[in-house]
Amino acid sequence: MSELALQAEKLDAADELAALRTRFVLDETVYLDGNSLGALPAVVPDRVADVVRRQWGELRIRSWDESGWWTAPERIGDRIAPLVGAAAGQIVVGDSTSVNVFKALVAAVRMAGEEGADRTEILVDATTFPTDGYIAESAARLTGRTLRAVTPAEVPAALSDRTAAVLLNHVDYRTGRLHDLPGLTAAIHAAGALAVWDLCHSAGALPVGLDEHGVDLAVGCTYKYLNGGPGAPAYLYVRQELQPRFDSPLPGWNSHTDPFGMSPSYTPAPGALRGRVGTPDILSMLALEAALEVWDGVSVAAVRAKSLALTDFFLRCVSAYTEPGRVESVTPGRHEERGSQVALRCADAGEVMKRLISRGVVGDFRHPDVLRFGFTPLYVGFAETERAARILGEELA
Amino acid sequence: MSELALQAEKLDAADELAALRTRFVLDETVYLDGNSLGALPAVVPDRVADVVRRQWGELRIRSWDESGWWTAPERIGDRIAPLVGAAAGQIVVGDSTSVNVFKALVAAVRMAGEEGADRTEILVDATTFPTDGYIAESAARLTGRTLRAVTPAEVPAALSDRTAAVLLNHVDYRTGRLHDLPGLTAAIHAAGALAVWDLCHSAGALPVGLDEHGVDLAVGCTYKYLNGGPGAPAYLYVRQELQPRFDSPLPGWNSHTDPFGMSPSYTPAPGALRGRVGTPDILSMLALEAALEVWDGVSVAAVRAKSLALTDFFLRCVSAYTEPGRVESVTPGRHEERGSQVALRCADAGEVMKRLISRGVVGDFRHPDVLRFGFTPLYVGFAETERAARILGEELA
Repeated sequence: MSELALQAEKLDAADELAALRTRFVLDETVYLDGNSLGALPAVVPDRVADVVRRQWGELRIRSWDESGWWTAPERIGDRIAPLVGAAAGQIVVGDSTSVNVFKALVAAVRMAGEEGADRTEILVDATTFPTDGYIAESAARLTGRTLRAVTPAEVPAALSDRTAAVLLNHVDYRTGRLHDLPGLTAAIHAAGALAVWDLCHSAGALPVGLDEHGVDLAVGCTYKYLNGGPGAPAYLYVRQELQPRFDSPLPGWNSHTDPFGMSPSYTPAPGALRGRVGTPDILSMLALEAALEVWDGVSVAAVRAKSLALTDFFLRCVSAYTEPGRVESVTPGRHEERGSQVALRCADAGEVMKRLISRGVVGDFRHPDVLRFGFTPLYVGFAETERAARILGEELA
Repeated sequence: MSELALQAEKLDAADELAALRTRFVLDETVYLDGNSLGALPAVVPDRVADVVRRQWGELRIRSWDESGWWTAPERIGDRIAPLVGAAAGQIVVGDSTSVNVFKALVAAVRMAGEEGADRTEILVDATTFPTDGYIAESAARLTGRTLRAVTPAEVPAALSDRTAAVLLNHVDYRTGRLHDLPGLTAAIHAAGALAVWDLCHSAGALPVGLDEHGVDLAVGCTYKYLNGGPGAPAYLYVRQELQPRFDSPLPGWNSHTDPFGMSPSYTPAPGALRGRVGTPDILSMLALEAALEVWDGVSVAAVRAKSLALTDFFLRCVSAYTEPGRVESVTPGRHEERGSQVALRCADAGEVMKRLISRGVVGDFRHPDVLRFGFTPLYVGFAETERAARILGEELA
């Protein structure tokens, strides 16, 4: 057994989160794609079966009340809240991330415009997952603002009294770089603008601290590190103080203060409910609710510590097992700049990933030349991390 | 046995759709709320279990390709298409009805504006289910148009060369009135405007004829007569000729022509895919796909014939069993003006509905004074229709 394999054994033995793996349905595959689709939590299948057979099949329409369907968006939002450092009453679940980016950004622009300042510009992360940029372009067009794409590092210099809102990613989907949410949020606020954060690649992998850092609005998906299932509904955070001013561009009947009053005029509900739109997709939503039970008793700080240990160890193993220069890590080495994935650039990345998958090491490929390996501390261990790096080294030899 | 009960037996015996009831999970309840939440199709629980346990749990990320997750929105759209009289390639499934109303209406206004005419006004059904009116208000505000609410009957007189688009309901959610889709669409087109139809209360209950009548855009939910499950994803129809001009206000990455190219600039996909936004909610979506199998071999014309026979018979039974003047039907008597529900006005409707439900007759109550009874021809029979009317008569006595 190699030295690294021995170290992996010791690290696994000392891992206080190791037992959490049993909360998931896993096999011998080394699954390093939880940053794209989280593994299936063991509690989900029976819960979904109950939702379908009993709640829908037997109770039918009564379940909107009796099975708590109607209040699911805010109830599940409150379950996500502690994972992203938010007090209750600020998150609703529903719709896709893209739709929530639209709500958040249009609402942010409207709030920024309330002060009478001539805030004509939206800044968007130039390195963003594309959908955020596309939606930001639409939000700018519909609100009569201009959109400017800048890297997160360029944001402080780009801010001015013309800036209405800034849309940023907490962790870059491609490189795994963690951006400075506290510092950038403070800079945005100093310029009098609103900060909108996309947490897709950070929530569930590291502390976010939405309340602590005064983030204005945030969105995120729930199918990556939150393991909510394929296309599980996204969420929207609206800071409590801003909720009375949150003016949604998608004021569906579910956000009305009296939805069953069937009034022809719209009066928004108080609180986070204002972020709701239409009828929630209950099957996906209650699968997510069950999935969140894997977090019972789990500290996000412990998850972060293990995440960094895993990515450190993976980078060491890759260094040891791969000839120099064959791959280049585009994930920052410094902990304060690293999310929970490692992205390696190599020339034939698409082919390499196919071979890795055929050998039971599942990561993914991002155009044009990036191998992505996501580390979900709830179910990824050190021995399999060593194995993944070893097989990668063999395939790259 | 009463004469009406005997007639019900004969009608059930002659009902060519009677056997379809076995395709659903039902009990002794008379379920007349399928216009709110359709009953559970028998094929759904095992399908959903497979999606969760095998597709998500075992194949995980591979299912986006191998289980056909990625193409589900357009594949399921094509399955809905014949039910609403549309050729393939014009419908995508996803998001809520409210979100799809937003896409459709903003896109319609943009298309109407292309011709250079000063089309400054959107007309919306004043009797609409509220969410359509709220969303129309937002679409008007964001596109700089004015919104005017008129009843469907007033639409022809309200149309002018200033009209950009008209949003109408095919069947009124409260009264069950069927509006004249062919005639109103023709009038809207004659004024040079675009017709956007909400099919929530008609699709699956009666022929719609989207292609035949030249409807421009349409939306609908799938959890009523299409039995897709609670909050199942809605759909968007964009007439083929308009697709190249469909300019979505929600241009998420799923509608990009090369979504995995991760380009920072947006180039919309051709065809109906342009209506997609974010990652589809697979659990809800594949439950819907399974649910649509109950339509195999079923003719919408036969469904319509049975629907009218059921509502005719229910109205006759209510007349026979209820003292005159105790209730008033707000559902039109003429077949060409009737959807698939009967709405009865009575003073203490909320209390009456509670008592009916406690006796196993499930309809619903709509503020302030309407009892709604939905008739889903796929699983509602004549004997239970007679029983529902009889129990209603007893409770009203």
